[in-house]
Amino acid sequence: MIKNLKKFIGPLVSLFFLLNMTSVASAETTVSAEVGFIFNTFLFLVCGFLVMFMAAGFAMLESGMVTSKSVSVICAKNIGLFSIAGIMFWLFGYNLAYGIPEGGFIGKFIPWSDGSKIETGYSDGSDWYFQMVFCATTVSIVSGTLAERIKLWPFFLFAALLSGIIYPIVMGWQWGGGWLAVRGFSDFAGSTLVHSTGGAAALAGAILLGPRIGRFAKAGAPAPVKPFAASSIPLVTIGVFILWLGWFGFNGGSQLAMGTADDAIAVSKIFINTNLAACGGVMACAIVTRLMYGKTDVIQMLNGAIGGLVAITAEPLMPTPIAAILIGAVGGIIVIFGTKLLFHFKVDDVVGAIPAHLFAGIWGTLAVPITNSGANFGTQLLGVISINVFVFVVAFIVWILMKNTMGIRLSKEAELKGTDVSETGVIAYAIRD
Amino acid sequence: MIKNLKKFIGPLVSLFFLLNMTSVASAETTVSAEVGFIFNTFLFLVCGFLVMFMAAGFAMLESGMVTSKSVSVICAKNIGLFSIAGIMFWLFGYNLAYGIPEGGFIGKFIPWSDGSKIETGYSDGSDWYFQMVFCATTVSIVSGTLAERIKLWPFFLFAALLSGIIYPIVMGWQWGGGWLAVRGFSDFAGSTLVHSTGGAAALAGAILLGPRIGRFAKAGAPAPVKPFAASSIPLVTIGVFILWLGWFGFNGGSQLAMGTADDAIAVSKIFINTNLAACGGVMACAIVTRLMYGKTDVIQMLNGAIGGLVAITAEPLMPTPIAAILIGAVGGIIVIFGTKLLFHFKVDDVVGAIPAHLFAGIWGTLAVPITNSGANFGTQLLGVISINVFVFVVAFIVWILMKNTMGIRLSKEAELKGTDVSETGVIAYAIRD
Amino acid sequence: MIKNLKKFIGPLVSLFFLLNMTSVASAETTVSAEVGFIFNTFLFLVCGFLVMFMAAGFAMLESGMVTSKSVSVICAKNIGLFSIAGIMFWLFGYNLAYGIPEGGFIGKFIPWSDGSKIETGYSDGSDWYFQMVFCATTVSIVSGTLAERIKLWPFFLFAALLSGIIYPIVMGWQWGGGWLAVRGFSDFAGSTLVHSTGGAAALAGAILLGPRIGRFAKAGAPAPVKPFAASSIPLVTIGVFILWLGWFGFNGGSQLAMGTADDAIAVSKIFINTNLAACGGVMACAIVTRLMYGKTDVIQMLNGAIGGLVAITAEPLMPTPIAAILIGAVGGIIVIFGTKLLFHFKVDDVVGAIPAHLFAGIWGTLAVPITNSGANFGTQLLGVISINVFVFVVAFIVWILMKNTMGIRLSKEAELKGTDVSETGVIAYAIRD
Repeated sequence: MIKNLKKFIGPLVSLFFLLNMTSVASAETTVSAEVGFIFNTFLFLVCGFLVMFMAAGFAMLESGMVTSKSVSVICAKNIGLFSIAGIMFWLFGYNLAYGIPEGGFIGKFIPWSDGSKIETGYSDGSDWYFQMVFCATTVSIVSGTLAERIKLWPFFLFAALLSGIIYPIVMGWQWGGGWLAVRGFSDFAGSTLVHSTGGAAALAGAILLGPRIGRFAKAGAPAPVKPFAASSIPLVTIGVFILWLGWFGFNGGSQLAMGTADDAIAVSKIFINTNLAACGGVMACAIVTRLMYGKTDVIQMLNGAIGGLVAITAEPLMPTPIAAILIGAVGGIIVIFGTKLLFHFKVDDVVGAIPAHLFAGIWGTLAVPITNSGANFGTQLLGVISINVFVFVVAFIVWILMKNTMGIRLSKEAELKGTDVSETGVIAYAIRD
Repeated sequence: MIKNLKKFIGPLVSLFFLLNMTSVASAETTVSAEVGFIFNTFLFLVCGFLVMFMAAGFAMLESGMVTSKSVSVICAKNIGLFSIAGIMFWLFGYNLAYGIPEGGFIGKFIPWSDGSKIETGYSDGSDWYFQMVFCATTVSIVSGTLAERIKLWPFFLFAALLSGIIYPIVMGWQWGGGWLAVRGFSDFAGSTLVHSTGGAAALAGAILLGPRIGRFAKAGAPAPVKPFAASSIPLVTIGVFILWLGWFGFNGGSQLAMGTADDAIAVSKIFINTNLAACGGVMACAIVTRLMYGKTDVIQMLNGAIGGLVAITAEPLMPTPIAAILIGAVGGIIVIFGTKLLFHFKVDDVVGAIPAHLFAGIWGTLAVPITNSGANFGTQLLGVISINVFVFVVAFIVWILMKNTMGIRLSKEAELKGTDVSETGVIAYAIRD
Repeated sequence: MIKNLKKFIGPLVSLFFLLNMTSVASAETTVSAEVGFIFNTFLFLVCGFLVMFMAAGFAMLESGMVTSKSVSVICAKNIGLFSIAGIMFWLFGYNLAYGIPEGGFIGKFIPWSDGSKIETGYSDGSDWYFQMVFCATTVSIVSGTLAERIKLWPFFLFAALLSGIIYPIVMGWQWGGGWLAVRGFSDFAGSTLVHSTGGAAALAGAILLGPRIGRFAKAGAPAPVKPFAASSIPLVTIGVFILWLGWFGFNGGSQLAMGTADDAIAVSKIFINTNLAACGGVMACAIVTRLMYGKTDVIQMLNGAIGGLVAITAEPLMPTPIAAILIGAVGGIIVIFGTKLLFHFKVDDVVGAIPAHLFAGIWGTLAVPITNSGANFGTQLLGVISINVFVFVVAFIVWILMKNTMGIRLSKEAELKGTDVSETGVIAYAIRD
């Protein structure tokens, strides 16, 4: 019927074109406010569910990296932290970040409520959802580093503080228009805000917790000591692929708009650079470990993908493809040497999250001025230092307070029995021929 | 070029605004029928593929929950039932549900065919796809409960009847505009229609099949007996994360429209409530099991997510965030006590699907009037009873007919050898150091 | 506010309708160029990330199918090949395919760069992304067949040549408007271009590599010899479900447009046919293996899904639902008998990729004329033969050159120890009670 109508009005339309061209021309080149609103909301929801799925990626990455005595607890931590972050970011987080005065330090301790207006350009709820999954990602980063010796509930308490208060404060500094934003700091999707924040909180915890019993028995050994072998490489692999997938949402959604052709072009470019940086990270690790050790270390390739992805996150839009590959490759190499550095200092990072998220996040943030002429190195350094120092210090204080009250480390007996038995009472694998 | 054109016509557009404001105003605030059509279809397809992926979630959840002697068969059942449901819902299901007369009981036994018109507001095929994956979800729920002792092909036959006839009939009662819909029953995305239906069919089967050999040897034991330990907690975990992801599609897509700003706002709100209910379910189970048993039961946390998600499914739009958390938390707690209840009555539900889908589904449906003033408790109760009784009775009859003809339970020898060896001839794990 | 405005201008709009109906009618039935641009780009990005995730599906499918001594290397191969394909398709691939002269044989060796214009109808970058993940899929197909005995780095070199040169050449022949396209060859989403190409390259490698040591010890044995049992059926299962999910993007995105109601209807139809073909493949394999062997072979059901999906890929739009089921069912049956055929000829295809991708791809491409009157059998045969022969011959030459220079096969000692130990130094599973 519509088609018949079109046929019928065809000549009238032609006439209308002649008489009233501006109307049609404008219809051809603009997107109405409501259509733009729907597109932007759709972007947030689609990219948001991709980032949400990163929680599964972290759960699998960490499940595969820990020994088989600590897998159930890793699963409990990951499903628990995602739940805690969801609640806390509604209760405090969102308005601590976005309720910040311009150029300020902290927002308001009030729960989020929906205030969608068509003028905002997107549904408020879709923005909350998108920001919430970022918040959960920050907490996920901490989970793996501290595995196999931390008590479950102190971890959950830390997760609540990180997702409800610590992360939202630094988030507000930049994305809420706080003091870093007005100074011109540039962190597109959160190399520093999300990834370094998670990594710095993990580092503080790892230092205070100390390493797993026997982890550094053979001091200076170049490769992980056999008894701490990763329990399942395929789980690490699916975890990394899920994270890679989720990162398209993470960086792509950070364009925050899909309502114009220019936005659509930008989101596409971000997808490509995100992908190429991961490619660079993987292959740099493949080549470097092959040359250094004579074996192609699959774990470092997988972590190299994360390093590359974290590195491009501060600026996924401006780089050319070749620049994206190189930024990612450096991110990957940082993972390798960062891992060795932590090993040297006997910091026990069970899954390699500190090199991949903290170190590669610093690199990515400092590298922004290379491809984005609007950023400058001094401000980037200011942002990196202020956020990392703030998070590290606050996290350190929180961990110390918990250590001296409820305690954060399992008993020696519990650790040797395995966290799965002592904390959840559920062994992770019961596979019999 | 376009931009140049815009510059050139700018003054003309301004003039046009003055002369003909209504046209522009209307262009600014409305979405054309075709654009709305595309948005709605896009919503169905995107949400549909998320729900489709729930089939993988169920497959992993169940694979991880059964013992390692029954994993291959669980995989065969899940890929098989999804295939059977796809075919049956095309052959009969869709028109049994949607071909129902207003206020009626049953539709027509004719295959679906595409009748897309722009007036419908979305592509017919996208709606079929979205409804088909709901149908498959219903069948997935049955699969795990009956694991480790049911014969494969009788299960497939039941899957065909459930997806092709039983589910479509109750679906038509409500979503097809049948007798329950005209009475004002309210079940937004299917706490009862999908989840209780699956759970009731599973319960009927579990009663008739009886428990696995040795399952209740120590009568009244509070925790699962060791020999029936879940084979892989990380697989359960990725399963639950996939289901959680899929539920955004399940509930969000049930808005059935994305073509206006109001719809976009509603879908966003649904995403948030869906997420918060799952968070509530997880943390309620974490806290309750920690207090009750001294250990934080990861399996109940994971099942608690499902309980929370099922509970919010009947009304994911109207609750405030805090209400969503509480509805989900109650759903999670129902899972814990429902599991104990089934154990008490020696009903062997291998994966805990009956508490999570049937019991939490009843709760969620009855809770609708708390947040939705348009619903009333009496009608909700009517819907819950009529659907659950109908499905349970029909399923019971089908199971009994099958039991007395082809038989539904494996021989004792086959069960003790394990279903993988006896039914598929493929052991699930061949992992050697 | 918007709503109030609407109320206010209502009568004016009505008046406007009368005076100037063509404008409104046109607004009601057309999609502006920019809105269409965004829809099309969105389709490419969403379908693209689904296809990207297929890389995880292949990684899991292959991880589960190989023995537990070769899982780490499979993971390294899959994350590595996806990275290599991403870089190579940017460096050469895209313009080798799309820079081809009309009716020509090969495009240009220049890197891709963004040339988005609104007139193109979609963002250039989103198209690159979508085509890149197709390219990576082609390489993924090769990975599993050659498992457990190929050296890692020669595989990576082959992956670079296949993704950067061989695949882009055949892609250009058809989708770049090359010589096959002008002859009227029809391969909607790549049964031949992607799947047979991958399968033919794998076949050439498998022949030159030879089988794993001891694989065909009992010549003519009907079923896989026990020592080569698949290491993890649940990983194969999640792999297949991920591939099935990704295939909605693979085929649906190949409509290449979502900017009109007609396109939205077409994409929906493609989703349905894609799903039904997979259903047909699964159930055909379930029935046939049950009848042939007395057991329902879960591995063949899972591979049958792939066979069905590959078969429908050449023409997912035109078939009726019943035709889609049958095309898929034949694809599934081809997998069963293709597997037996390869076994008979002692070609060791570790994961069954050659039957599922090469053989079912040939079937799907030749079957196009059955449902698409615009295609003819002769041209389909020409396309199938020319692409498969070209790929097989070029791949064979490349493999032979590598064999005689760097060597492609591991030493006997390394193979018996397992590729994980010899190539990556990381065992895949360290699961202890």
